[in-house]
Amino acid sequence: MAGKSRIGRVYLVGAGPGDPKLLTLRGKECLEQADVVLYDYLANPALLSHAPPQAERIYVGRRGRGQYQPQETTNRMLVERARQGQIVVRLKGGDPFVFGRGGEEAEALAAAGVLFEVVPGVTAAVAAPAYAGIPVTHRTMASTVTFVTGHEDPDKSTTALEWPRLASSHGTLVFLMGMKNLPSIVSNLIGEGRPSTTPVALIRWGTRAAQRTVVGTLADIVEKAQQAKLEPPTVVVVGEVVKLREQLNWFERRP
Amino acid sequence: MAGKSRIGRVYLVGAGPGDPKLLTLRGKECLEQADVVLYDYLANPALLSHAPPQAERIYVGRRGRGQYQPQETTNRMLVERARQGQIVVRLKGGDPFVFGRGGEEAEALAAAGVLFEVVPGVTAAVAAPAYAGIPVTHRTMASTVTFVTGHEDPDKSTTALEWPRLASSHGTLVFLMGMKNLPSIVSNLIGEGRPSTTPVALIRWGTRAAQRTVVGTLADIVEKAQQAKLEPPTVVVVGEVVKLREQLNWFERRP
Repeated sequence: MAGKSRIGRVYLVGAGPGDPKLLTLRGKECLEQADVVLYDYLANPALLSHAPPQAERIYVGRRGRGQYQPQETTNRMLVERARQGQIVVRLKGGDPFVFGRGGEEAEALAAAGVLFEVVPGVTAAVAAPAYAGIPVTHRTMASTVTFVTGHEDPDKSTTALEWPRLASSHGTLVFLMGMKNLPSIVSNLIGEGRPSTTPVALIRWGTRAAQRTVVGTLADIVEKAQQAKLEPPTVVVVGEVVKLREQLNWFERRP
Repeated sequence: MAGKSRIGRVYLVGAGPGDPKLLTLRGKECLEQADVVLYDYLANPALLSHAPPQAERIYVGRRGRGQYQPQETTNRMLVERARQGQIVVRLKGGDPFVFGRGGEEAEALAAAGVLFEVVPGVTAAVAAPAYAGIPVTHRTMASTVTFVTGHEDPDKSTTALEWPRLASSHGTLVFLMGMKNLPSIVSNLIGEGRPSTTPVALIRWGTRAAQRTVVGTLADIVEKAQQAKLEPPTVVVVGEVVKLREQLNWFERRP
């Protein structure tokens, strides 16, 4: 392609849940071609080693407790870099379209006429429970699974969390980033009628070597989380399937 | 390890949604070590090329219209092969724990005392919509996403599908393998009050080159599916996010 100016493009790549081996083959390929990688807090930084040494690496995740780079700034960077002819990888924890604001990034790229491709990833909503020995669905225990964002956007009143509906489900509920709001998640579910005996698992840094799991019920999980001093990022799993962990906990028991 | 008998084990590997590049690095590694691979209908057979030439390949998927090898037979094969000291890969379409009956396979292995590891995969419930330009969650349009199995086990009366709850959701619904029951899915949702103007997308063979998408509303999707002669395997997406496809449909428009 000597002498021909390249057409820039953006790959919205799911980094997977944490274990760097859970990146997809396509995600690795994209990183290997990258001129610049924009990554955030939840994408395992070990994945950056797939990018060429000279590729630029830009952190666009949270800066401190609760402080994030504004989404508009990230969107603008993606558009600008692609327009300069660069191969841009936007590396996002889990899957780009599961609570990753990847939809908004794709909209910004489409609106600007920038070529983009979505590379789905393994979501922590499924993989963190799996590494804790919990299948999110099960033929006799859970015929549905619902993913909920644990930190709800305060200006989203119309689609505010649907507690009566969530509480009445017989299926599994998975709250991503649910640690900060755990007390209100629990009190809403109990308040709307979910039995306080319902099993709950909290999985911190799921699929990483540092994975830690705390199990309880809606009645005692807030206290147990405090005793264990569990911090974000933590996935919250609510439902009967949590009971399978006792038998299926392969990862934390591995030799 | 000459002279030492190996300890057999089973890897329950998510094959991903269809695009062979959406296999994980860990999934590829497991296949490369396999003595035997048990695969089914939804796992892309192209992935078998990662296994050594001498590895045995056993198809345990459906034999004809609606006929499957009994789950118990598959469970027994997994246990027997591992007990013979083999490295067994159970390659399952999508993710092993999202409607894959992987939970039951893990239970059988745990009960038999066989070493196993779960390798999560990219689920078609997220990736097929993503390749059709549909983010399953969106900050302003859908704060939850629910996965539902489209062919419900008839003997599961207690956890029978929760139509009133599903119909009242403002979030996205994704029915995996929903094609055969599309008319009853649609009539249940409308019957329980979901507006007939709700957008619906049907995505056949999502993420494969053969991907095909039909878009409509609850009011007309059954007729459109018949006109398009759409067959399984098809993912059904219900919710406002389907509208984003018009802008974000990158895969079917790619050069």
